[in-house]
Amino acid sequence: MTTIVQEGAAAEAVERSIRIIKEKDAAIGAWVYFDPRRARQVAEDVDARFADGPLYGVPVGIKDIFDTNDMPTAYGSSIYAGHHPGRDAALVAQLRQSGAVVMGKTATTEFASPYPARTRNPHNLGHSPGGSSSGSAAAVASGMLPLALGSQTLGSIIRPASYCGVYGFKPSHGRISRAGVLTLSDTLDTIGALGKSVAILETFYRHITGDQRIVTFSSRKPPRLAYCEAPGWEQTTQAARDAFDRAIAKFRSKGLNIQKLVLPEAFLHLVDAGFTVHDYELYRNFSADRLGHWDGLSEKFKEIMRRGAKVSTSQHEDALGIAAWCRDEFAKLMGDFDAVITLSATDEAPEGLDTTGSPAVNVAWTLLRGPCLSLPSLIGAQGLPIGLQLCSPQSTDSSLLACANWLDRG
Amino acid sequence: MTTIVQEGAAAEAVERSIRIIKEKDAAIGAWVYFDPRRARQVAEDVDARFADGPLYGVPVGIKDIFDTNDMPTAYGSSIYAGHHPGRDAALVAQLRQSGAVVMGKTATTEFASPYPARTRNPHNLGHSPGGSSSGSAAAVASGMLPLALGSQTLGSIIRPASYCGVYGFKPSHGRISRAGVLTLSDTLDTIGALGKSVAILETFYRHITGDQRIVTFSSRKPPRLAYCEAPGWEQTTQAARDAFDRAIAKFRSKGLNIQKLVLPEAFLHLVDAGFTVHDYELYRNFSADRLGHWDGLSEKFKEIMRRGAKVSTSQHEDALGIAAWCRDEFAKLMGDFDAVITLSATDEAPEGLDTTGSPAVNVAWTLLRGPCLSLPSLIGAQGLPIGLQLCSPQSTDSSLLACANWLDRG
Repeated sequence: MTTIVQEGAAAEAVERSIRIIKEKDAAIGAWVYFDPRRARQVAEDVDARFADGPLYGVPVGIKDIFDTNDMPTAYGSSIYAGHHPGRDAALVAQLRQSGAVVMGKTATTEFASPYPARTRNPHNLGHSPGGSSSGSAAAVASGMLPLALGSQTLGSIIRPASYCGVYGFKPSHGRISRAGVLTLSDTLDTIGALGKSVAILETFYRHITGDQRIVTFSSRKPPRLAYCEAPGWEQTTQAARDAFDRAIAKFRSKGLNIQKLVLPEAFLHLVDAGFTVHDYELYRNFSADRLGHWDGLSEKFKEIMRRGAKVSTSQHEDALGIAAWCRDEFAKLMGDFDAVITLSATDEAPEGLDTTGSPAVNVAWTLLRGPCLSLPSLIGAQGLPIGLQLCSPQSTDSSLLACANWLDRG
Repeated sequence: MTTIVQEGAAAEAVERSIRIIKEKDAAIGAWVYFDPRRARQVAEDVDARFADGPLYGVPVGIKDIFDTNDMPTAYGSSIYAGHHPGRDAALVAQLRQSGAVVMGKTATTEFASPYPARTRNPHNLGHSPGGSSSGSAAAVASGMLPLALGSQTLGSIIRPASYCGVYGFKPSHGRISRAGVLTLSDTLDTIGALGKSVAILETFYRHITGDQRIVTFSSRKPPRLAYCEAPGWEQTTQAARDAFDRAIAKFRSKGLNIQKLVLPEAFLHLVDAGFTVHDYELYRNFSADRLGHWDGLSEKFKEIMRRGAKVSTSQHEDALGIAAWCRDEFAKLMGDFDAVITLSATDEAPEGLDTTGSPAVNVAWTLLRGPCLSLPSLIGAQGLPIGLQLCSPQSTDSSLLACANWLDRG
């Protein structure tokens, strides 16, 4: 008896994914674990078990800092090559139950930190895809997948989404479970996804969180929009700022009322505060690795450990205090607006694979804990994509998604 | 050639521990993994590598929700019997580096939740030791160890410390790394320890966190103390309240100025808010287990999952909002006080091993995120211990430890 692959929606979608992965991944390097035979089996199982469901048949890539029960999880580190954590991350289990097809593990930078993965930017193979969700961004950008998991501690969802010209969504901090995901910083780590459209990111968000508070805008009740220079703006390039100005002008020429928002000066401290929190918490959370496997760490990661060792408890507390103050202020400021628009990255993707670029314009928003969404909108000086970043206060995810839909259709 | 165990401080302390464990653990059941041969090897290694250090030679028990690289980690669940997570929790790695001797794994309730471990209370084997840090509390109480790790999501450090008549310290939320510890609730999970004295808990806290801001009180500058009825007070027994009143009266008779603090009415909502947050977050964080291993869960744990499924995103957000408001209020209220004293538990340890008792008077403080310390002080109607719980706002750990020292010596 031969097994006949059922021609269901999952099997069909997975075959398409497999074809594109086989065609493109040798050049791009988005995957660290991918077994087409296993993917086909999962698709067959999904077609047999799930008649429908919001994510039925959607092939999904899992960033390799999410634990998986049936695939290795190496956290982008040679220390954990072939590591089997023995339990699915909560989100992976939720995806399996949703009818999505878990395809394999996408490349992450070392411990979701600056040391790059071997992934290349699908728009120009000589450029970085950004990080740390490098493989997830590149896989979506090259059409291998409609959806892939990401996580953001500084700028690890929004920046690669920007560089790769895909949609990226970092929901409010704490809204999606981090159980079974590598811990970098409890204060900052936020789970989200990269996708081919706002629609798939919204479907993902609503199914996983159960948040069904739909916000709708119409021409009679359009979103109240602002734009601003994100903290870290001094690190953006002139080309990126010019592209940003043109985009705002274009929205306005279409009749959108977008007001300029000037953030309080205290917000400028959020970038440093974010790095202080990051370094302090990573130093402690990676104790097993810095104490047990120092030689297995990259020089870039060792540098974080050295910096983290120097941050005192009171410096950490002060940074958390600045963040808490700014969160309250941001909620008040945004009483008049549904979303504020800024740049998703300081520039287009950097050339070479030595760096994954700068998270300078992302750090403040991650620390503010509200939702952020990157829309692929702008083109940089070298013709590579740059995203527009939409931000709003914590727990306003539904309204931010509605703003993104509005602008994206516009 | 025979190996001669070096007669260092670690070897000596470990031999003493092994002797007491062998003598008592058959009756008490504090351990789920303990291998005396391995403990001796570790002690030998510690004696060879560490000349001193704050925790040099201290035998430490590891609650079995902390991942260990070289011992199984079962999270108190038959689903994970023999599970090897393949990486040390950050705190375990820090302990190994401190010169402490990691002795083995102490019993936890199922997933650090209500379903009991098989541990018995050393003061009366017919009674519960409390939970979820059941084995850690019982091991310290029976003299097997001077120090053992705990974690608290509702009342899992302070309550077993109270029932077992040992000291328990839950530092401020986020101060000790949770990396590699089973996630129940990011909002609530807090790492701490149970010990035979305030001194060892303070040594542990300072070494692990690096927080060296010492606060000292003197007869010229005594701590400013208050007492209060904790939210959940209606669940305390008359006998516990009487013992509490006598303790406050006794402190006063010694000349201590302890004022009554009446908490704002809004604080009464903290208990329900804590359970709302708990149920919502556990439902999501245990997705891998509820979706993949439903039959392996206890009825008590299934009940949490059923409750959690019914909590909406907005109910969760509202509960977090109440917590945030009360945190600010508590910090203001405590401007005049260094610590507020209340009961550590609703009563002495309950009879039988079917329940680990109620966390009613702990939940609010866990949600407030400040440090809590239990001093073994009172005696209940059946002659079993009850603790006095000292609480203060987030990031005032040093001052709370100084208050505990002051009262304990008093």
